[in-house]
Amino acid sequence: MPEVRNHTFDELTIGQQAESTRTVTMEDIRLFAAASGDHNPLHLDPAYAAGTPFGECIAHGMFSGGLISAALAMQLPGPGTIYLGQSLAFRLPVKIGDTLTVQLTVTDKQPRRRQVTLDCLVLNQHGKKVVTGSAEVMAPAERETVTIETPKPG
Amino acid sequence: MPEVRNHTFDELTIGQQAESTRTVTMEDIRLFAAASGDHNPLHLDPAYAAGTPFGECIAHGMFSGGLISAALAMQLPGPGTIYLGQSLAFRLPVKIGDTLTVQLTVTDKQPRRRQVTLDCLVLNQHGKKVVTGSAEVMAPAERETVTIETPKPG
Repeated sequence: MPEVRNHTFDELTIGQQAESTRTVTMEDIRLFAAASGDHNPLHLDPAYAAGTPFGECIAHGMFSGGLISAALAMQLPGPGTIYLGQSLAFRLPVKIGDTLTVQLTVTDKQPRRRQVTLDCLVLNQHGKKVVTGSAEVMAPAERETVTIETPKPG
Repeated sequence: MPEVRNHTFDELTIGQQAESTRTVTMEDIRLFAAASGDHNPLHLDPAYAAGTPFGECIAHGMFSGGLISAALAMQLPGPGTIYLGQSLAFRLPVKIGDTLTVQLTVTDKQPRRRQVTLDCLVLNQHGKKVVTGSAEVMAPAERETVTIETPKPG
């Protein structure tokens, strides 16, 4: 089981970055459909999707939002972070099999409420911007290392 | 299997609303953790969560974002909607067992790109605002009724 260490408000520096990569599978999309309740056939039914302008199944836009939120919670600032707000612009569709890279960059720190702003970027395997946005979080006050368990839901 | 009809750009009216309700289960949170990759023990481990300021497991903030995106995609405007952007402010924690109501309200229509702005509100069972925000979508041009299948992921 991996251990994850957070970054406290005092440790964070403007320009600090974190990156994570994930290849999108149909199983991921099924999980997101079940979690969110968005069972739109554009995401789940290849025959339906073939008749849309996309031509094939695409991921839910908010799936990429979930990847951003995971990078904030697991990496930068990591465990102990309190999520205050997020803006997202969905720029390009994400297809099954695309490899997405989430890049977070610290752009502002305000000591009041330990508030930190992070630029959020999701790129596909062609280096194209899929999602752009900005996150507001309250960074942790204390250092912490947590043990991460990743059981399959069942 | 339920059928869902969409609302075209021309049909949508300023002030038009849609609402959906969901009670949050630990299984929902496990699904969202698997889909997003956010396996933070605050969401999944009651013993860990008991030692945090929250005192118990809470849902991922972006879980509520997923509920909003599902309401846009399934109800208003519904199938055929293209998601352009979303802002979210996370105001209160969501606990396991909370019953969340997503309220969408059409606040603006711009014929260019058939762009529609919707006010997004998530309330808990006490009527408190859990998440507020705004969505930008491209509404469908054509009426469509789709059949929704909701298999369990496995």
